[in-house]
Amino acid sequence: MADLEEVLPALAAEMAERTDRGDVANYIPQLGKIDPQRFGIAVALTDGRVVAAGDADETFSIQSISKMFTLTLALGKVGDALWRRVGREPSGNPFNSIVQLENEQGIPRNPFINAGAIVVTDVLLAGHQPREAIGEILRFAQFLADDDTIIVDREVAASEQATGFRNVALANYMKAFGNLQHAPELALGVYYHHCAIAMSCRQLAMSGRFLAHGGRNPATGHSVVSAERARRILALMLTCGHYDGSGDFAFRVGIPAKSGVGGGILGIVPGVASIAVWSPGLNENGNSRLGSIALEKLARAMNWSVFAP
Amino acid sequence: MADLEEVLPALAAEMAERTDRGDVANYIPQLGKIDPQRFGIAVALTDGRVVAAGDADETFSIQSISKMFTLTLALGKVGDALWRRVGREPSGNPFNSIVQLENEQGIPRNPFINAGAIVVTDVLLAGHQPREAIGEILRFAQFLADDDTIIVDREVAASEQATGFRNVALANYMKAFGNLQHAPELALGVYYHHCAIAMSCRQLAMSGRFLAHGGRNPATGHSVVSAERARRILALMLTCGHYDGSGDFAFRVGIPAKSGVGGGILGIVPGVASIAVWSPGLNENGNSRLGSIALEKLARAMNWSVFAP
Amino acid sequence: MADLEEVLPALAAEMAERTDRGDVANYIPQLGKIDPQRFGIAVALTDGRVVAAGDADETFSIQSISKMFTLTLALGKVGDALWRRVGREPSGNPFNSIVQLENEQGIPRNPFINAGAIVVTDVLLAGHQPREAIGEILRFAQFLADDDTIIVDREVAASEQATGFRNVALANYMKAFGNLQHAPELALGVYYHHCAIAMSCRQLAMSGRFLAHGGRNPATGHSVVSAERARRILALMLTCGHYDGSGDFAFRVGIPAKSGVGGGILGIVPGVASIAVWSPGLNENGNSRLGSIALEKLARAMNWSVFAP
Amino acid sequence: MADLEEVLPALAAEMAERTDRGDVANYIPQLGKIDPQRFGIAVALTDGRVVAAGDADETFSIQSISKMFTLTLALGKVGDALWRRVGREPSGNPFNSIVQLENEQGIPRNPFINAGAIVVTDVLLAGHQPREAIGEILRFAQFLADDDTIIVDREVAASEQATGFRNVALANYMKAFGNLQHAPELALGVYYHHCAIAMSCRQLAMSGRFLAHGGRNPATGHSVVSAERARRILALMLTCGHYDGSGDFAFRVGIPAKSGVGGGILGIVPGVASIAVWSPGLNENGNSRLGSIALEKLARAMNWSVFAP
Repeated sequence: MADLEEVLPALAAEMAERTDRGDVANYIPQLGKIDPQRFGIAVALTDGRVVAAGDADETFSIQSISKMFTLTLALGKVGDALWRRVGREPSGNPFNSIVQLENEQGIPRNPFINAGAIVVTDVLLAGHQPREAIGEILRFAQFLADDDTIIVDREVAASEQATGFRNVALANYMKAFGNLQHAPELALGVYYHHCAIAMSCRQLAMSGRFLAHGGRNPATGHSVVSAERARRILALMLTCGHYDGSGDFAFRVGIPAKSGVGGGILGIVPGVASIAVWSPGLNENGNSRLGSIALEKLARAMNWSVFAP
Repeated sequence: MADLEEVLPALAAEMAERTDRGDVANYIPQLGKIDPQRFGIAVALTDGRVVAAGDADETFSIQSISKMFTLTLALGKVGDALWRRVGREPSGNPFNSIVQLENEQGIPRNPFINAGAIVVTDVLLAGHQPREAIGEILRFAQFLADDDTIIVDREVAASEQATGFRNVALANYMKAFGNLQHAPELALGVYYHHCAIAMSCRQLAMSGRFLAHGGRNPATGHSVVSAERARRILALMLTCGHYDGSGDFAFRVGIPAKSGVGGGILGIVPGVASIAVWSPGLNENGNSRLGSIALEKLARAMNWSVFAP
Repeated sequence: MADLEEVLPALAAEMAERTDRGDVANYIPQLGKIDPQRFGIAVALTDGRVVAAGDADETFSIQSISKMFTLTLALGKVGDALWRRVGREPSGNPFNSIVQLENEQGIPRNPFINAGAIVVTDVLLAGHQPREAIGEILRFAQFLADDDTIIVDREVAASEQATGFRNVALANYMKAFGNLQHAPELALGVYYHHCAIAMSCRQLAMSGRFLAHGGRNPATGHSVVSAERARRILALMLTCGHYDGSGDFAFRVGIPAKSGVGGGILGIVPGVASIAVWSPGLNENGNSRLGSIALEKLARAMNWSVFAP
Repeated sequence: MADLEEVLPALAAEMAERTDRGDVANYIPQLGKIDPQRFGIAVALTDGRVVAAGDADETFSIQSISKMFTLTLALGKVGDALWRRVGREPSGNPFNSIVQLENEQGIPRNPFINAGAIVVTDVLLAGHQPREAIGEILRFAQFLADDDTIIVDREVAASEQATGFRNVALANYMKAFGNLQHAPELALGVYYHHCAIAMSCRQLAMSGRFLAHGGRNPATGHSVVSAERARRILALMLTCGHYDGSGDFAFRVGIPAKSGVGGGILGIVPGVASIAVWSPGLNENGNSRLGSIALEKLARAMNWSVFAP
């Protein structure tokens, strides 16, 4: 196996050279301003080491990667009852598709497409004011990353709120089917704010360690979720973490991962490592173009794959 | 970790007691005659041991599990060019859905739904008579299982050919889009015959060893496919192996597997084991009901999961 | 030809006896309170006579019948430019379906399904405050019916506004595709109010006379729309006026008509009559059950059909 | 009203000049050979006169216009029982779409899309050999046109049979749902042959007279179908006769009509005229481009519309 300390800088250098960087998400105005030349990567190993390269300490909008945090919190709150309101199947449709909701009576396919994540957020609102729910999610991210400096970028949240007509449509559509308990605008308010959490690759890699370590924080040994739940979250990341590009990502890279339109991807090698990569340009499925390529190359170099013997 | 020699017989005994066995596939008349009380399981470990229980030596119709054989052969024949004619994404639709084909111009979502497997079969027909193509697939199954007694059950093939109107529709529909090179009836003839291969759990578990062993036969050390290709086939099994129940299976069981409507499932634990289970009753997604449950219980007992640390 | 003065009372009496009255729309709470025993009918002949029977002077919520008023106004305002934003084809889907919008980039199929009518309302908002746009539509209905007492039932509008999550979804979805020029809530506000116009059968039949009379008011001879536009509005009513029951209605009844979930239907016999019928119970397509049957019987008795020699 | 004897030659001359003629159907090889410069038109008035212009006596493949003949025959054979196997709604999809069949359990939307017409043909096969069924349909066309020289163009039928994979898909798909009583290849054989009937505009206009004349042959006074059935067939032609361009055709032209991919259109003005027009180039919905335009101009010139007072 290659030496990660050599692999990462080489990878960052190679990525800096590439010109096929994809397009930065422009449907959220605030995200459209990000410099597409950025590339960062950080790997938190279960042995405690953290290796990083490129713009690994620059924060970016984690967007849909936050759906891992909210799913984990919601499972802690309501357990398997969650699955009465959201499915566990790949969607076969883009992240913001509404077609499937009409055909399946307002039950979203999985918690990682927008509609599913809005339902998960609605679960987290129970008994809370929106501000409290946002606070709970942010504190969970801070706790997992062991870093109190992580914040919500309110400009990004406001930018998405002002232009998120499709998400308004999704939320109201599910409300019409009785699959939201709160007012759509409240669930969406929380949703936009947790999507707007800003983290660096280093912080994000730290926050995923419990998933690589059987549900426990490898530094403290404290359990975040049960080992079984950690495995199940990873299964969902593998089958649903890249929208309608999930199958291709599993085929090419072979590790569970969750992407966000901010250009970040969080990948987990069970027992070994939590990886965060960031490059703002997206491919045709809305996943980081260079981030996907970098993860594929890293996985091959390190022989990291859940499908390897 | 539990002792497999104890776990398997206990599991077979527990399954024999259950009354919620699902319904035997009745759309293929010959399959509808199978006794739903049957249950068999066999595990071929990469250390060479084979452990079995229940009706592990009774043959059954492997049906769609044969799609793993044909995919492996077709990749050997045309390599990544295959992916110009078939996708790698979960379908989000039942195994015999035609809707997606219309929306995506005759390119099936993946090689494990019927439409995709018919395209793969069409690839294997190139330069061959149907009889030769059937022979090649059968010999590959015999070679992998190291057992020359494996045969095609021609009554099952004839039964499916007489009633397979949906598959005729799928094949002709793809032909209309130019995605079949041979006459639809020729591709279907080969397809029905490879689906009608009859194998026991023991034979099937043996045939999957190369996937558990990085592409090599653990007995001989000979390479069947490259390590990378083995991983990629496993990725497809995990994301697409159970039709529109693939996400749920990955969530519950956590190992790559391919099911067939004959009630068989082939599951692979990378580096550890190739597992075949069989019970003819199906669940609502067309996958073996008790087979799925038994694999879930076995995986938990043995701590087998690609998502475990 | 039968004598309308005899036919209508007999028809009203027959309808009063029927017990298969369908279900009153309950998704708008205020509509759910209406007595399902009501039945009214009024026919305004182009010779100036008006014949009525049953509860013909009781007002009801015209709901989607108002889409005829708004379409007529919008065509007057922007002419054929309207057709860049809404189609002219039957939808093949329920009145509140969103699937077609995703497949066709936010362009609704026709101006008589909810999505299409919301676009039409958005057109009427140009240069106006919502209150002014509502006023303009109401005055147009009053003008056509020659009756200044017609009002908007604000309780119904408020009831729909409080529960119209699907319409919020439709409006925001089209906004996401750039097919609404105003804020979705503004267009919806106007939409709910024009749907909540309350009219009696007599008033409604009066309001449709111009369509039966080549675009001119038969009483005054003044032109409301050109003869060609009147024909085209009738064509849309025939092909799209009953949602996904439009084909069946044309087959059974053979006259252009527009229905509303309040249980009203406005039907036009070109050159002869404008007919309004009302019975609150709906059939499976959301059209008045007894209203449809009464129109079928009336058309047969009077030999009224656009397809008759 | 204009004089038809003057209008038709002028229209033919105008159409001869146009260069925007659309593309000839090329998916049936034999049709692809037709000269796109052809244009013919014939009008059979209910007063007995026939006026024609252009290539009105040249035969062409009537294709889907034959679905009017088969629908009329099938209604005569099984009456309203037909509607248990085929719907009466516009499809909202292209003529050869299969999506709707999956969603609606093998029941085609209407008898004028391919799937619906194949079911109708299956009805006509009951108790017959394919050859007899073809003979019955051909004799019906000859009878209606009062012309025994009308034939089936067997080269066109063979050409379609060799390449009609989509129709094979449709037929087998419906067979899978139990909505075909005969073998798919038998129903398709009859279907291809009746679509391959060759007629001139003059013959076609003659064959439609009964629909313009309340179900009776205006020359003999003999009843072909009841007046009510004639009206209902016209209703289906108006709502479904031009596939997913039916709404637009009703809007522009305002008369019931059935088109075929051979470039012919049969239009009916109730009480007045049966019109046949032919120009081989098609528009984006698969309907004759110049034929549609010519009918629109003719209808306007003669003030022919079912929606006119």
